[in-house]
Amino acid sequence: MSSRGETGPVLRRATQVLTAFTSDRPALTLTQLARRAGLPLTTTHRLVGELVHCGLLERDADGRYRVGLRLWEIASLAPRGLGLRERALPYMEDLFAVTRENVQLAVREGVESVYVERLAGRHAVPVLTRVGGRFPLHPTGVGRVLLAHAPTDIQEAVLAGPLTRFTPLTVVDPDALRKILADVRAHGFAVNDRQVTMDSLSVAAPIRAADGEVVAAVSIVVTSGTALPAALAPAVRATAQGITRALRS
Amino acid sequence: MSSRGETGPVLRRATQVLTAFTSDRPALTLTQLARRAGLPLTTTHRLVGELVHCGLLERDADGRYRVGLRLWEIASLAPRGLGLRERALPYMEDLFAVTRENVQLAVREGVESVYVERLAGRHAVPVLTRVGGRFPLHPTGVGRVLLAHAPTDIQEAVLAGPLTRFTPLTVVDPDALRKILADVRAHGFAVNDRQVTMDSLSVAAPIRAADGEVVAAVSIVVTSGTALPAALAPAVRATAQGITRALRS
Repeated sequence: MSSRGETGPVLRRATQVLTAFTSDRPALTLTQLARRAGLPLTTTHRLVGELVHCGLLERDADGRYRVGLRLWEIASLAPRGLGLRERALPYMEDLFAVTRENVQLAVREGVESVYVERLAGRHAVPVLTRVGGRFPLHPTGVGRVLLAHAPTDIQEAVLAGPLTRFTPLTVVDPDALRKILADVRAHGFAVNDRQVTMDSLSVAAPIRAADGEVVAAVSIVVTSGTALPAALAPAVRATAQGITRALRS
Repeated sequence: MSSRGETGPVLRRATQVLTAFTSDRPALTLTQLARRAGLPLTTTHRLVGELVHCGLLERDADGRYRVGLRLWEIASLAPRGLGLRERALPYMEDLFAVTRENVQLAVREGVESVYVERLAGRHAVPVLTRVGGRFPLHPTGVGRVLLAHAPTDIQEAVLAGPLTRFTPLTVVDPDALRKILADVRAHGFAVNDRQVTMDSLSVAAPIRAADGEVVAAVSIVVTSGTALPAALAPAVRATAQGITRALRS
């Protein structure tokens, strides 16, 4: 009977260890892992040994641990991760080829967005997002598209705040955001000017599954003031339509 | 004491469940998962419940299970997966922009290659590889580059076979392959003509870490007969050099 009771704690603790890594700290010592996971050193030592044995963690030449390639191979089968990305990539590449600007693909996870893909020219405007990383929904183009089509309880949870002000222009007033979300639904795209950084403008459009549900959003991020949103919207909407069609086939 | 003994079995069984998914079968029922993982249904039921609780698996509208976005988020921190890919992408995009052909990035895991990235135009020649997927080392450009710089025991294990013949032209003779690997080391790139499919030719070059070790390979795959390998090699080698430099900084 003991194994029944232990399944949960072992997997939950293993997940705590795996989620201790961040983009700033992709390699950690055993002591750092234990501290970040909030687990005793002996427990961490045992878990880490098994995770290495299973290939889910790797040990580097310095003796530090990092997320293993085996875990990445398994994760490549996540339909909302690489699965979506594989379908979307040719259309994103077309948009990237004609613009050489940031082209981003994101999905919603709870009250945040997760970036699934980004193509970025070396001379494109810098953005704060990272593939595999999370970001708030309210200031970004993809975020507003995803939020505009989210269930009401998710919208209300986000609008209830706190809403981070990334720039002096970031809209953080719930009523103003509610109006913006209605516009996004009415027009079929979102335009976000200087909402995350003072030099970026994004245009985003929704990607739908076969049942019509919005499952992802694609955007282009350019230097604010260099392009008219009206000129970018048709290209972004066409890209979103192409991906929507690819998801249906 | 029971928890000590259970850590290993629980994590190993959980890994068996997670590795039951394949690119052909990204969504599985509980019964299918149990059969593919080789575990009793009750054990699988308990493990799957916990994996869903931890966000490592998701349940879709049909009641089938699939790899979760949470797992993909963790895996995005694997240095040999998305970490490498993020550094390499701008250089791969440059090569893709000027050629519109398949541009691939791979690392070695044991006696196989794992594809970390692929950019592919919609009109590029079809290839058999998949991002996150494994492939034998002996017939591909990236595979031969990785094998040429692998430890001797890995080379001997691969050459000892079995070596799959993908086309009538695939080199499967160990002595001929040994000669090819020596040429790859001498010339700094690999040319593979019609070794995987009868219409593809690839040119690949090594990517090195700061200590000089070959840690990855990049290739371009074109339609065989349409381009001279001698014309492609400088571009692929320049791309590999660019990524090598990016890994050092």
